Amino acid sequence: MTLPEAPRGRPRDTRAHQAILTATAELVAEAGYAATSIGAVAARAGTGKDTIYRRWSGKAELVYEAVFTETESGPVPDTGSLTGDLTALVEALVQEFSAPAAAAALPGLLADFAANPGLRSRIRGHFLAPARTRLAEVFERAVRRGEADSAVPVDLVLDTLAGAVFFHVGLVGEPAGPRLAGQLAGLVGRGIEAR
Amino acid sequence: MTLPEAPRGRPRDTRAHQAILTATAELVAEAGYAATSIGAVAARAGTGKDTIYRRWSGKAELVYEAVFTETESGPVPDTGSLTGDLTALVEALVQEFSAPAAAAALPGLLADFAANPGLRSRIRGHFLAPARTRLAEVFERAVRRGEADSAVPVDLVLDTLAGAVFFHVGLVGEPAGPRLAGQLAGLVGRGIEAR
Repeated sequence: MTLPEAPRGRPRDTRAHQAILTATAELVAEAGYAATSIGAVAARAGTGKDTIYRRWSGKAELVYEAVFTETESGPVPDTGSLTGDLTALVEALVQEFSAPAAAAALPGLLADFAANPGLRSRIRGHFLAPARTRLAEVFERAVRRGEADSAVPVDLVLDTLAGAVFFHVGLVGEPAGPRLAGQLAGLVGRGIEAR
Repeated sequence: MTLPEAPRGRPRDTRAHQAILTATAELVAEAGYAATSIGAVAARAGTGKDTIYRRWSGKAELVYEAVFTETESGPVPDTGSLTGDLTALVEALVQEFSAPAAAAALPGLLADFAANPGLRSRIRGHFLAPARTRLAEVFERAVRRGEADSAVPVDLVLDTLAGAVFFHVGLVGEPAGPRLAGQLAGLVGRGIEAR
């Protein structure tokens, strides 16, 4: 099927892209990280392996995107307050880390990142970049409203929020209670307030 | 870990205990987590494997204690201010995560914890207990001085501090700059202030 208003090939590319991500998340949740191969993903998504390798450097990057960036496609939260925006960002993080695919992917993903310096050197600049952009937008709005202290490094806030959620949900493996996102956002929000 | 005053036979036990922890940290740093076995630790420490199994449930618990609890043997920081005490606690965390043995141990340790629900269920109550006790002492002193808000859960503060250091040093693999501990302690200290 061709959609006339779209550039040639685009809709099919987008569909293939999403099918690959969905197949990856499903396979990881069902079979685990080690048993998920690019070939198995291609077969389930109905694409060729070359289509996958044109877009992703390999399994670690593909699984990371399939499991940890789904919530980064929507609009950046804009509730009118720093704590409200941070709560929404943390709720999305909690949701990502609580998904079965995340629990299944994390140990293998961490091992691959640890073993591969080339991959690891791209964490800050590549893998975390979309989350950082969203947080920076929230932070800059709060600075303009006079709520947040512009001297606080955004990366410190990102490491603190993502680290706390990762530690609680991903590492200790405790389910996130309904108050976790609000409590963490409240702590960090007060911690970066303008004075 | 703190050993109380010695019952009979204690000095020899204490020496064996420390020799086992030192041998474990050395082996992990030299050969990696996977290649570190209880047998190899026993041989290097000059003890029997049974001595190790009397004290530790297995490799994961032994490596965790060898790599991540060394700084828990000294006195709890008491600088007179919440931020000062938190800075000292975070500096110790940064030092632990920056050690070669920690970088070498983390991926395998995380995989073992993830794969073993029995081990994982003991993280909060057993593995994190000494760090939590130290942080609780700092926090309760700050509450008594009127500095900290007694309503903040200590576990939330622990997850935030440990998670941020773990994320920055252990996961992203960035060396901790000289300002990291102070910046993180400042953010969290302001975040839990009494108002």
